[in-house]
Amino acid sequence: MAVYTALGAESLAELIAAYDVGELVSAKGIAEGVSNSNWLIETRGRDGAGARFILTMYERRIDTAELPFFLDLLDHLAAKGCAVPATIHDRSGDSLRDVAGKAVALIAFLPGVSPSVPTPDQARAVGEALARVHLAARDFPGQRRDRLDPAANLAALERCGADRLAAIDPALPEALALARDITPRWPVELPRSIIHSDLFPDNVLMLGKRVTGLIDFYFACEGMMAYDLAVTHAAWAFRDGGATFSPGIGAALVSGYEAVRQLEPEERAALPVLAQGACLRFTASRAEDWLDTPAQAQVSRKDPMDFLRRWQFYRANGAAAFADG
Amino acid sequence: MAVYTALGAESLAELIAAYDVGELVSAKGIAEGVSNSNWLIETRGRDGAGARFILTMYERRIDTAELPFFLDLLDHLAAKGCAVPATIHDRSGDSLRDVAGKAVALIAFLPGVSPSVPTPDQARAVGEALARVHLAARDFPGQRRDRLDPAANLAALERCGADRLAAIDPALPEALALARDITPRWPVELPRSIIHSDLFPDNVLMLGKRVTGLIDFYFACEGMMAYDLAVTHAAWAFRDGGATFSPGIGAALVSGYEAVRQLEPEERAALPVLAQGACLRFTASRAEDWLDTPAQAQVSRKDPMDFLRRWQFYRANGAAAFADG
Repeated sequence: MAVYTALGAESLAELIAAYDVGELVSAKGIAEGVSNSNWLIETRGRDGAGARFILTMYERRIDTAELPFFLDLLDHLAAKGCAVPATIHDRSGDSLRDVAGKAVALIAFLPGVSPSVPTPDQARAVGEALARVHLAARDFPGQRRDRLDPAANLAALERCGADRLAAIDPALPEALALARDITPRWPVELPRSIIHSDLFPDNVLMLGKRVTGLIDFYFACEGMMAYDLAVTHAAWAFRDGGATFSPGIGAALVSGYEAVRQLEPEERAALPVLAQGACLRFTASRAEDWLDTPAQAQVSRKDPMDFLRRWQFYRANGAAAFADG
Repeated sequence: MAVYTALGAESLAELIAAYDVGELVSAKGIAEGVSNSNWLIETRGRDGAGARFILTMYERRIDTAELPFFLDLLDHLAAKGCAVPATIHDRSGDSLRDVAGKAVALIAFLPGVSPSVPTPDQARAVGEALARVHLAARDFPGQRRDRLDPAANLAALERCGADRLAAIDPALPEALALARDITPRWPVELPRSIIHSDLFPDNVLMLGKRVTGLIDFYFACEGMMAYDLAVTHAAWAFRDGGATFSPGIGAALVSGYEAVRQLEPEERAALPVLAQGACLRFTASRAEDWLDTPAQAQVSRKDPMDFLRRWQFYRANGAAAFADG
């Protein structure tokens, strides 16, 4: 949550002039994105009626060689009518530019707010929107493999080590045994597409029950579509730091998804292990971030226990976690 | 530069519904303000055509008992045609509300960007806008005394102490002697009004040469108008961390001011000592902040030397620093 780079008004105006969007009218650094700087930009618009955009400057964690994958994916999905922001191409046709040695992209602004207490109607709409992305992305030619599969996540937990995990929470080392149990059971033959793989409520914009935007595709990669649904289930269907399951949210999410794309029997059967794999991933990444972040830092750390609790729920409940509401 | 409080979409929508501005459409936390959280809010507007606002949540450093002074001042100035954002009153007529135990205000959004390399034309327009505020505020009934007069700033430097000042920069303890030299020479009988007293380029929005908004009035208080002009001079007319004076900027600022409100001879004669008092103030506040902020903190510290250099310039140049361009 920061703007890492100061961009003067004059540099911003010069950058915006490279696009056919009208003159710069306003620029506010926004407190979103942990690895990018972002500005909400207003211009006069091509017709003088005003237009808004998100300007993203890529700072760290993101390999700039991969940016064309992410930006082309947005354009591919937007062109097929998915609720994602299209990129704005500059007067030379490029969606990436360089400012002060850093890559930047201008991206459509979408209205909407991220629900923090989602309703079943909202979860259903998100399931539908996710399925539409999966179908629309099947013929996307870009390639990016998943770096965060269970083997990689288990290796990350092992790098943390039982002692340091126990220092975060005495119960956390159990994640190591759970992770070793998942990797041999991990499915590999399920239907694939490009998946978002990080569709937390923060990454969804809504107006009431309507999804106006899925955003932040910087974890998108080739993967199993049912895994993406399981990630979204784990991200949306719990309250109280993972201690309370919301069956109505989970059921609405899956049913919305299936209203657009029916799961195959093998996918449905795999949901419990896929959801545990999702919990492994976020437990591991949060544990790593926790150990990397000094306790005094002003950056808030996310508790890995939130996902160990979900993990235990999915293990205990199996297919019942995905039963109809 | 932060959003200190997480406000869920549902709480935000409920808050916005208390105002007659149409339904909430978008809310982005913006990276502005060191003592407040701020969001750029978009609503459908009263007429459905859309409207934008800044929502400010007062977090710390600001005494909430003083908020009516600041908000009423904005309304007073905006009603007189000054380029400042008016506050939005809720359906009960109040400009302050309470959310989660914190005071919030909804304020008009103004277009414009803050110049980082100002031109003389821009400085002239800022001088004019400042003089208009001084004239418009003369009949404002609110009262707030200046907490940051030279005696208070000298006391702050003395609390830092020569040793700790020297640890920031070996030259910095000189500020103590300079400050003791200013206090007996400080004028008290100059014409007064409500002054902004913090009009750095960050606090001015412009479109080209036009001032679209003076913002961040949270240091406003009763004071000498010429002191406010001197603060603005010190804030605008230097480059390179205070090492280089820009005479064209300084002259344009004063001449713009005088195009709207002629300085009295006593005011003009006092500008050199007033500017040194402004430098004392920012040297002291930056030194205090520097010593209060751990070097490892992600909050950027401002170098107090930037204003000691200006101070030395004003001492060395006297009235020549304010000569016509």
